[in-house]
Amino acid sequence: MGSIGTLLLPRFVLPVRPERTVLREHAVRLLDGRIDAILPADEAAVRYPDDDRVDLGRHALLPGFVNAHTHSPMSLLRGYADDLALDAWLREHIWPAEQRWVSPEFVREGTQLALVEMLRGGVTCFNEMYFFPEVIAETADEAGLRAVIGAPVIDVPTPWASGIAECLERSRELVDRFAATERIDVALAPHAPYTVDEAGLAAVKALSEETGVRVNMHVLEAAWEIRHSREQFGKGPLQRLHGHGLLGPEFMAVHMVHLDEADIALLVETGTHVIHCPESNLKLGNGVCPVPALLEAGVNVALGTDGAASNNDLDLLGEARTAALVAKGFSGDPEALDAWKVLDLMTINGARAMGRESDFGTIEPGKLADLCAFDLDWPETQPVHRVHAQVVYSAASRQVSDVWVGGRRLLEAGAPTTLDLPGILASAEAWNARMKVA
Amino acid sequence: MGSIGTLLLPRFVLPVRPERTVLREHAVRLLDGRIDAILPADEAAVRYPDDDRVDLGRHALLPGFVNAHTHSPMSLLRGYADDLALDAWLREHIWPAEQRWVSPEFVREGTQLALVEMLRGGVTCFNEMYFFPEVIAETADEAGLRAVIGAPVIDVPTPWASGIAECLERSRELVDRFAATERIDVALAPHAPYTVDEAGLAAVKALSEETGVRVNMHVLEAAWEIRHSREQFGKGPLQRLHGHGLLGPEFMAVHMVHLDEADIALLVETGTHVIHCPESNLKLGNGVCPVPALLEAGVNVALGTDGAASNNDLDLLGEARTAALVAKGFSGDPEALDAWKVLDLMTINGARAMGRESDFGTIEPGKLADLCAFDLDWPETQPVHRVHAQVVYSAASRQVSDVWVGGRRLLEAGAPTTLDLPGILASAEAWNARMKVA
Repeated sequence: MGSIGTLLLPRFVLPVRPERTVLREHAVRLLDGRIDAILPADEAAVRYPDDDRVDLGRHALLPGFVNAHTHSPMSLLRGYADDLALDAWLREHIWPAEQRWVSPEFVREGTQLALVEMLRGGVTCFNEMYFFPEVIAETADEAGLRAVIGAPVIDVPTPWASGIAECLERSRELVDRFAATERIDVALAPHAPYTVDEAGLAAVKALSEETGVRVNMHVLEAAWEIRHSREQFGKGPLQRLHGHGLLGPEFMAVHMVHLDEADIALLVETGTHVIHCPESNLKLGNGVCPVPALLEAGVNVALGTDGAASNNDLDLLGEARTAALVAKGFSGDPEALDAWKVLDLMTINGARAMGRESDFGTIEPGKLADLCAFDLDWPETQPVHRVHAQVVYSAASRQVSDVWVGGRRLLEAGAPTTLDLPGILASAEAWNARMKVA
Repeated sequence: MGSIGTLLLPRFVLPVRPERTVLREHAVRLLDGRIDAILPADEAAVRYPDDDRVDLGRHALLPGFVNAHTHSPMSLLRGYADDLALDAWLREHIWPAEQRWVSPEFVREGTQLALVEMLRGGVTCFNEMYFFPEVIAETADEAGLRAVIGAPVIDVPTPWASGIAECLERSRELVDRFAATERIDVALAPHAPYTVDEAGLAAVKALSEETGVRVNMHVLEAAWEIRHSREQFGKGPLQRLHGHGLLGPEFMAVHMVHLDEADIALLVETGTHVIHCPESNLKLGNGVCPVPALLEAGVNVALGTDGAASNNDLDLLGEARTAALVAKGFSGDPEALDAWKVLDLMTINGARAMGRESDFGTIEPGKLADLCAFDLDWPETQPVHRVHAQVVYSAASRQVSDVWVGGRRLLEAGAPTTLDLPGILASAEAWNARMKVA
């Protein structure tokens, strides 16, 4: 008591917990980077007269969004190749471009472009998988965002590492280097069952146990993965990962389009998290992860944008809307994945997948002050009959005006405070010019 | 020659025709409300030194978008009820609210809210179906947009008309009243096969023949329509409409989710247009119109947002992106409905459905100057490797900076020039307060 806090004063608070709650005319008090209290605005004025006040007008305040799967530097490959199947897209376009262009400089500048886009869309924390993860970690930390940085493990030579052995060596260095960096967690990110062999999976498991870091991996993205796995290993990809002891509450399985009942039972039994990337899955023609069935069974499902090369944006709100629409459209049940559940996918479920549900993902006293504010005073979100529906089904991500991470305001009235937007735009333009190949 | 025109000078022109064309550093010359010429910018400077010049920086210039199905005044019902099936949504929520609130004032103010949203999203022409169509027509015309105003014909008493007979009477008045209004076309809009009886359909056909106006109708939106039609009329809805002579190049069939091969053949044979509203169809759990199969067969498919009560926005670009994603995701073919085809759906195909393909829908000399400009200099659309993909897969509708209809600039650097945005926001807020029922 007695310390000077900050009172955020929006018109609406959507705290996500308690469930299905809208608070009107409430203040959210920030103190020392955390949420100190949530109380009626008039009471806050009396109780904390010396606090700084941030008047958020007719805005809605929400927990910061968690982008649970992305490849940030691929922002520089946005729109580089589209309307192609996963295999051709990867092997004929993306991998050759990466081989030619990916460098620490590409990764730093691509990450900055991604960070500014994510902040402008309300994202406060992201789960990353890309080469030169040490550069991504540094860049995210400098900009003030929170991140889980996955060190890629892949049996393909890349500009970052020659193969699985070097990936693992560098992964270990990454764990050590960022162990004390508060906003950065490190994870292991084996690319996919079809690009990591048996010895590689065993080594990932061993290193994860030794260092205590989480694992995230593309699994069951395309139908051919299952055939390939059965032919080569005599079992499906999920069963193979389970054989290596990888599934569990420390494992984030990304995509998960092609699931049968036994797979779902295995996810429930092991407490494995699923990261749903609906737009990438649709765009590459892979299909749709059965989210309503997973939630019904009790699986934790979070949401990711995937990289901008396959989406083609890092707009978690747009992703959430697509998740709701396809869940209803594919199941034929318009009540499937309602707007409240969608808010969970974007926030607390992402935090849970990262093992951080006690630290962020909702607006509750004691949690880190990771927040975003939406300006609902655009014609596109008027009138505000039901604020949660207006956010999920109508708002544009650019209606995010302000973002705080650990109480620090990283976006203020639409402008980034830690990232140089004109410099980032100039850099993107320069990469475009450089990458124009005849 | 000798008249003063206006040279629009964007970085990119996507004229839609010729197909798959990107022009760089070109000028589009406007004269007397029409597109006079498209030529290299340096040549234009020499040839038309006295013209007004509009420097559009790093923008992309496209044909204005055609929203081929909407219920504009329902903007005031945005987010009023969600996550419900079509039948419950209509009968338990939307129809009662309409019965209570819909009036000329509601329609005028709801239309203004819709118009400002559509303009801000690049829409220059829309195909409308709602009560008090005379008010919608006046409001659209005052604001300077182009529209096809459908007069609703429905066997349910509404605040506008007591039933089918009065609907038809008022439809005839509407045709007469707007016959000489340049930007307004009138159409007949029988609501759906399940809300217009045999005599009603016959009367619609007769009035359409007599007056020469087009017909647009919700058809095959929900699966139960087919059962209902077979039970009551001994044939499917499409076959029933064909029996009345309604199908043809003057007929716009909206939704069209549940089609078999015979239905598709009938559409081809008659030259009937299909209006695809993917987000509404998904959200209400109805499914997905088989657009790739329709295009393959040679059917003209245009795109509509439906009303904001079921979408929940009037963002044709967002609708286009959803159309591309679900076409790929449902078919399993990532090459289905590529970004170029999507641009056709939003522009020339909409014009064609309205019988106006020689007047607008592309940037070609002689056509009306209905245009929109996108500011691509946002981080979300950088770098611009392939401009058409950046527009279709990455741009937000709010990147539309400028809109011209018939050469008149209705949106200028993001601000509407004919609509009072603060007044529209205040009106939406007032409706929200008024409609709050315990």
